[in-house]
Amino acid sequence: MRTIKIAVIHGPNLNFLGIREPQVYGNMDYNSLVDCIAKETAKSAKDEKIEVKLAQFQSNHEGEIIDLLQKCHNEDFDGIVINPGAFSHYSYAIADAIASIKPTVIEVHLTNVYAREEFRHKSVTAPACKGQIAGFGFDSYVLATSQLIKLYKE
Amino acid sequence: MRTIKIAVIHGPNLNFLGIREPQVYGNMDYNSLVDCIAKETAKSAKDEKIEVKLAQFQSNHEGEIIDLLQKCHNEDFDGIVINPGAFSHYSYAIADAIASIKPTVIEVHLTNVYAREEFRHKSVTAPACKGQIAGFGFDSYVLATSQLIKLYKE
Amino acid sequence: MRTIKIAVIHGPNLNFLGIREPQVYGNMDYNSLVDCIAKETAKSAKDEKIEVKLAQFQSNHEGEIIDLLQKCHNEDFDGIVINPGAFSHYSYAIADAIASIKPTVIEVHLTNVYAREEFRHKSVTAPACKGQIAGFGFDSYVLATSQLIKLYKE
Amino acid sequence: MRTIKIAVIHGPNLNFLGIREPQVYGNMDYNSLVDCIAKETAKSAKDEKIEVKLAQFQSNHEGEIIDLLQKCHNEDFDGIVINPGAFSHYSYAIADAIASIKPTVIEVHLTNVYAREEFRHKSVTAPACKGQIAGFGFDSYVLATSQLIKLYKE
Amino acid sequence: MRTIKIAVIHGPNLNFLGIREPQVYGNMDYNSLVDCIAKETAKSAKDEKIEVKLAQFQSNHEGEIIDLLQKCHNEDFDGIVINPGAFSHYSYAIADAIASIKPTVIEVHLTNVYAREEFRHKSVTAPACKGQIAGFGFDSYVLATSQLIKLYKE
Amino acid sequence: MRTIKIAVIHGPNLNFLGIREPQVYGNMDYNSLVDCIAKETAKSAKDEKIEVKLAQFQSNHEGEIIDLLQKCHNEDFDGIVINPGAFSHYSYAIADAIASIKPTVIEVHLTNVYAREEFRHKSVTAPACKGQIAGFGFDSYVLATSQLIKLYKE
Amino acid sequence: MRTIKIAVIHGPNLNFLGIREPQVYGNMDYNSLVDCIAKETAKSAKDEKIEVKLAQFQSNHEGEIIDLLQKCHNEDFDGIVINPGAFSHYSYAIADAIASIKPTVIEVHLTNVYAREEFRHKSVTAPACKGQIAGFGFDSYVLATSQLIKLYKE
Amino acid sequence: MRTIKIAVIHGPNLNFLGIREPQVYGNMDYNSLVDCIAKETAKSAKDEKIEVKLAQFQSNHEGEIIDLLQKCHNEDFDGIVINPGAFSHYSYAIADAIASIKPTVIEVHLTNVYAREEFRHKSVTAPACKGQIAGFGFDSYVLATSQLIKLYKE
Amino acid sequence: MRTIKIAVIHGPNLNFLGIREPQVYGNMDYNSLVDCIAKETAKSAKDEKIEVKLAQFQSNHEGEIIDLLQKCHNEDFDGIVINPGAFSHYSYAIADAIASIKPTVIEVHLTNVYAREEFRHKSVTAPACKGQIAGFGFDSYVLATSQLIKLYKE
Amino acid sequence: MRTIKIAVIHGPNLNFLGIREPQVYGNMDYNSLVDCIAKETAKSAKDEKIEVKLAQFQSNHEGEIIDLLQKCHNEDFDGIVINPGAFSHYSYAIADAIASIKPTVIEVHLTNVYAREEFRHKSVTAPACKGQIAGFGFDSYVLATSQLIKLYKE
Amino acid sequence: MRTIKIAVIHGPNLNFLGIREPQVYGNMDYNSLVDCIAKETAKSAKDEKIEVKLAQFQSNHEGEIIDLLQKCHNEDFDGIVINPGAFSHYSYAIADAIASIKPTVIEVHLTNVYAREEFRHKSVTAPACKGQIAGFGFDSYVLATSQLIKLYKE
Amino acid sequence: MRTIKIAVIHGPNLNFLGIREPQVYGNMDYNSLVDCIAKETAKSAKDEKIEVKLAQFQSNHEGEIIDLLQKCHNEDFDGIVINPGAFSHYSYAIADAIASIKPTVIEVHLTNVYAREEFRHKSVTAPACKGQIAGFGFDSYVLATSQLIKLYKE
Repeated sequence: MRTIKIAVIHGPNLNFLGIREPQVYGNMDYNSLVDCIAKETAKSAKDEKIEVKLAQFQSNHEGEIIDLLQKCHNEDFDGIVINPGAFSHYSYAIADAIASIKPTVIEVHLTNVYAREEFRHKSVTAPACKGQIAGFGFDSYVLATSQLIKLYKE
Repeated sequence: MRTIKIAVIHGPNLNFLGIREPQVYGNMDYNSLVDCIAKETAKSAKDEKIEVKLAQFQSNHEGEIIDLLQKCHNEDFDGIVINPGAFSHYSYAIADAIASIKPTVIEVHLTNVYAREEFRHKSVTAPACKGQIAGFGFDSYVLATSQLIKLYKE
Repeated sequence: MRTIKIAVIHGPNLNFLGIREPQVYGNMDYNSLVDCIAKETAKSAKDEKIEVKLAQFQSNHEGEIIDLLQKCHNEDFDGIVINPGAFSHYSYAIADAIASIKPTVIEVHLTNVYAREEFRHKSVTAPACKGQIAGFGFDSYVLATSQLIKLYKE
Repeated sequence: MRTIKIAVIHGPNLNFLGIREPQVYGNMDYNSLVDCIAKETAKSAKDEKIEVKLAQFQSNHEGEIIDLLQKCHNEDFDGIVINPGAFSHYSYAIADAIASIKPTVIEVHLTNVYAREEFRHKSVTAPACKGQIAGFGFDSYVLATSQLIKLYKE
Repeated sequence: MRTIKIAVIHGPNLNFLGIREPQVYGNMDYNSLVDCIAKETAKSAKDEKIEVKLAQFQSNHEGEIIDLLQKCHNEDFDGIVINPGAFSHYSYAIADAIASIKPTVIEVHLTNVYAREEFRHKSVTAPACKGQIAGFGFDSYVLATSQLIKLYKE
Repeated sequence: MRTIKIAVIHGPNLNFLGIREPQVYGNMDYNSLVDCIAKETAKSAKDEKIEVKLAQFQSNHEGEIIDLLQKCHNEDFDGIVINPGAFSHYSYAIADAIASIKPTVIEVHLTNVYAREEFRHKSVTAPACKGQIAGFGFDSYVLATSQLIKLYKE
Repeated sequence: MRTIKIAVIHGPNLNFLGIREPQVYGNMDYNSLVDCIAKETAKSAKDEKIEVKLAQFQSNHEGEIIDLLQKCHNEDFDGIVINPGAFSHYSYAIADAIASIKPTVIEVHLTNVYAREEFRHKSVTAPACKGQIAGFGFDSYVLATSQLIKLYKE
Repeated sequence: MRTIKIAVIHGPNLNFLGIREPQVYGNMDYNSLVDCIAKETAKSAKDEKIEVKLAQFQSNHEGEIIDLLQKCHNEDFDGIVINPGAFSHYSYAIADAIASIKPTVIEVHLTNVYAREEFRHKSVTAPACKGQIAGFGFDSYVLATSQLIKLYKE
Repeated sequence: MRTIKIAVIHGPNLNFLGIREPQVYGNMDYNSLVDCIAKETAKSAKDEKIEVKLAQFQSNHEGEIIDLLQKCHNEDFDGIVINPGAFSHYSYAIADAIASIKPTVIEVHLTNVYAREEFRHKSVTAPACKGQIAGFGFDSYVLATSQLIKLYKE
Repeated sequence: MRTIKIAVIHGPNLNFLGIREPQVYGNMDYNSLVDCIAKETAKSAKDEKIEVKLAQFQSNHEGEIIDLLQKCHNEDFDGIVINPGAFSHYSYAIADAIASIKPTVIEVHLTNVYAREEFRHKSVTAPACKGQIAGFGFDSYVLATSQLIKLYKE
Repeated sequence: MRTIKIAVIHGPNLNFLGIREPQVYGNMDYNSLVDCIAKETAKSAKDEKIEVKLAQFQSNHEGEIIDLLQKCHNEDFDGIVINPGAFSHYSYAIADAIASIKPTVIEVHLTNVYAREEFRHKSVTAPACKGQIAGFGFDSYVLATSQLIKLYKE
Repeated sequence: MRTIKIAVIHGPNLNFLGIREPQVYGNMDYNSLVDCIAKETAKSAKDEKIEVKLAQFQSNHEGEIIDLLQKCHNEDFDGIVINPGAFSHYSYAIADAIASIKPTVIEVHLTNVYAREEFRHKSVTAPACKGQIAGFGFDSYVLATSQLIKLYKE
């Protein structure tokens, strides 16, 4: 049975889910998010009859996120789901990191950023990614991992 | 006797006070600033007959500043005084962090930024704060800590 | 024992505190504000072991505010704390008055004007002042008086 | 029988009706205006079978108008008809006052300001009011009081 | 012998002549200005062999200035000399008052406003006046009173 | 007894006073204007106990006006009162001439140009003058000559 | 038989017809123009059975043209045909003169100025005239005189 | 021996050379300019062994300058040197006159106008001239007359 | 023998050399870069007969780079070679740090940024540096260190 | 007898005079131009009783023109007459060369460039020159050489 | 021993170093620059134990510079150091030549062009080069030759 | 049999065909281009039964190209095919040369310049030519010579 390695990188302030503006981001906390992704990804894996090794990380540091992206490359991850949070609006350095590595990267957002403040519409990281999924809450992540599984199962 | 926990977060290059453009920022160094805040805050605390646990941090790291903001939340700090330095012009991530946490955050500036270069007028972090104190040198911080003491003493 | 003379000038509608948009300005009324400033300033004065003569004025009249600024000059006030309210957006006459007089003037706002409507961001009076304190409710004033005490105590 | 309290506030230069540019504002003087409003309002009240206590004020002072608006609030007026005159073009302070108080405020103009000079088109006070009635001479006021009576009769 | 009644209305901050930006407005104070106008007007009156009742007012209040303009009308003043100061840049209410009254109104300026900052070039009050005299220091007023004497002596 | 030499230069169409748009410029004719200036200036001179040599010129010719300005310089005139009429809107040549000569030049207008058509607001000649007097009919000139007498009498 | 007095004023450079750019203005000289106008106007007069006194003038001087316009007024001319030439593009002084006088003034141009260079499109004198006739060569004048005859014959 | 007729036309304010802004135009007066042109032109004539009739005119009158240009045509002048002064910025009538006449016209400037204020760069008269000589002080004229001598000597 | 202290600061993603877009940045990895700089600088030092203490750092963290710049100041480094990577496009904080410190800073780029995407042309850090070397791969660094050796050897 | 060294530099296409657009540039050829300048300059020299060493160059090569300008500097030429032809519209390199050298440089044009196509009005070389002579055909050069002789003869 | 062939191409006006604007480019002349490059390159060669054939050219001719670039290609030069001077702002032909040839081309500037006038920031030649070295005076060249030696020594 | 003389002028960098960016310009070298043009033109000539004298030139010098254009004129060429290369984007001097000469000039480009970089779209030389043929590789030239043969054969 083929094994796929997937990393989920949660950007700045995502560890404060449930605390941070719950009227925007909901009451579920970061652990729920992590659990949900784990459980749903496991289900997808089972459905697709392959093994998925899932690793999840969170960081508020632009530099650490670059470090993590590089680590995933070094450890032969197949795919990465990243929510760059506010870094997506100005971090050309993360964009460069995404463009540098082998794993397939999908950008996700909990909310529909295009339906929010003007400054949240621009993403400098998105162009370096495979694609973007935004506006589905926790499911944004789940859709991304299932997509990666689909991509790498054969 | 009630204990109040206050953090002071000094942003990038503030540790180079006295070295950095002294004609703008003055000849007093960073240690003088730290001592001044400590001494004056202690005095305020004594005056208010409460205990103040004051923690001061300086970081040139955007991520560390976000971590510090969250740590203050987690460790039940009551208030935070932040001088975001140049990060105030572009760090939406710090702004998001300030908006996410429970402690009261006050933005301070040593100089009257509204009387300086155009690009220093814009702050992406100020709207997320409780308020702003600008133009009083070291006393901008002292006013902020005394305000936090006052806010939380009962 | 040195005596410092400080005036507090409350601009238009501040006497309707508690009544005026309480969701914005809070439930405390104008008398509470006056008392608070008096009590807190007295405490500061006592702490600093100096005498402070504090005079407070409220007016909905632009002209009375100019009169008061001039009176403070004539009666050798050391400092003035002014909340020009809506006059800050258009009163070149008050700005001219501030620029004409000897006392140090600090502009205060109850709310964080930078987090409100666009037209409240512009102040034609601020550039003529020493500094600005915004967003701390009653304490914006208290911080300003304590700063004036500090400035003039030696 | 229910009693409704209504105030009419005549802004700057309205006391000079009949004297002021009669080709624009007509030959009837301020007293005629006051009487007309009184008589017509009484008629409306009688028609609606309720008691109306009507108070009329005139002032050339931006500050006094703010004072009057506040006084109406304090004395439990139900509604206010205001003709802010030229203040409507720049007085954010009156606008703030209108927004602060409990009575329903209707802005009136004798003339159709939108058919006159450019600078008379802009009103900064109108947004804080319930509505605006302009261009019907004395009847602008009468329509406003009858509207208030209707509003408050049950 | 005919008696002419003339009012001189000094706008905001003119009572601070000598204190206010002396490099622009000179070192002579407000009393000197008042005395100069009185003496020179008396001389003009004597020369013209008529009696002049001269009343001088200074106000920092827009509303008082409107009241004064109307009072002059009511008390049958013949002429008014007005220096509206900073109000000339935004007080449409004063402009309306000038346009409403019978006395002849002359706008004066100490300095040649057309040779100063851009924002001081615009006067919303000038169009409502009989004429304008600018650039002659105290004599701007003296020329205006002598003109009013002349106008009304027969 | 000191002798002061003053020239009055009447620009284009001023000789048609009384004929030209009487609703704007009045019914008095040019000769009345000349006589009035002569008589009133003589009176001022007598009052001031000095001799005034007054010369008056009218021309519809831009060039003659420049000639006159230069002649006044050559014949040691002390002051010049000029009403450039419509030339004030485009004659850079007259402006150059005013800037070239020694006598003090005061610009006068019969009407309040600021209350008339847009194109009459602009003067290319005014910046080269000492000051401006506008709106007093014949007396605009008389005020100017009396001001020149005052200026040069000692 | 009624007598009508008509003046024709030829502006700058019209005396150089036939010499001046013949490809634009034709080979006929100024005398031919004068004769043509005289002959054709006489014919119109005869047709209309009235007497016409026709006077023709030419001047290169803006000032002289103003003088002529005024002279026509003084000598009770009924109508004036004027070709202001290049002065039509900038002479507000001629425009003022036309507006000042009693005779009816018609502006004419030999060529269709609107089909030529941009700067020839603008006329500051036309608004003060009764009407404008342009583009018919000598006949532009003839049409104008016949129109004046028609206007004044009864 | 052939005789060449040359006119030099000095425009407005050139007769005030030496008086007018000497820091720009130098200390030499108008007579020196006239003499210099006369002497140098005579020398050129002698060198060229022809007779030159030189006529110099100065006028502050636009109309006189047009008359002079035409007179030069009528009196068979061969060439004209013109310094139109401030008229070069707006006199389309002079431009038309230059374009109408037979003599060769050369525009001269004392200073290098392309190295001065923006508004002095534009010349509406230059396109109608043969050529332009700028920047050589008095010699700008001398170069022009010598050029005309050369042009017409055979 | 004089000792020179030089620091090399490698910005974000430079540790992924060889992995990152090899068609742009080449196949050599980060260690090779570090070794190359070390070896070549040592050679330069030997050639110049001075001792060079070389310290190299890599960081994906903006804050660490500021720390390093300050550390170099504190440890009396003579010169710094910095490749700010993508931070050069937005990090005002790094620019502030470079402007604050004593060592000479040279900005280097592996590739010719002027031949790449538009957004890579702008550097907010370059103006604070001594000069810039771009396009020579590893040797951009080597050239910079040899230049610093030259600069500081005497 | 003083010797003056003058160079004439003919720019691109000037050797095709007589061939090139004769309706614009005339029928005389380049040799005639060279001879004419030589003969006329010799005559000027003789008249002025000084020796003039005249060197003429033509080149269609921008680089040769720069070489020539520098050679003139090296060989102690006193003045240079340059017709940069089309290079005047874009050659910053020639402008740099003119600004670098000691001799006085006069820019000449055969035709009146201000009466031609828009793009011929702009000269990047003119601001670096002493003055400009345009529109006199061959004589533009002759005037320039005679002016240089005059300038340097004493 | 390997032989490397390097050409240095100095663009327009560089041969006038020391003469040309010394406040910008310094007092050292072109020969010093040539000698410095020769000496330092020889030293580099010796250090690298290879033979360097160095050829230096200076040309003010765009075409010669293109010829030289091609000649370097034809004669198997390994590298070229070019300072295109003012040609860098407009010579697309030189840019095309650089893009056409085999030798490695490095663009150098004596000064930091990014810290000078706006028009000097744009280089149309830089994108065609290997890289750019700016701001190190003569050493900009020396760094470039040493780089070429390094590049080609093995 | 009629003989037609045709010149082909190859502009800058065309001698580097085959070397220069072969992916854009192909692998065929300059000699192939020359031979192809010669062979195909001969064929066209034979077809048309006339003699064609064909001369081909290449130059990297703007100045030499102007020289060549003039030489073709002097040697009575009938037509010229020119590929001005990069000079077409800025050489007004070549445009002037083309406009000066008798032979018919056709501009050719190997590639479709309108389908390449923005700056290659603009040609300042094309307006002076008979026509332009672009985008057919070597055949662009062949089409041009055949067109010239057709044009001149009778």
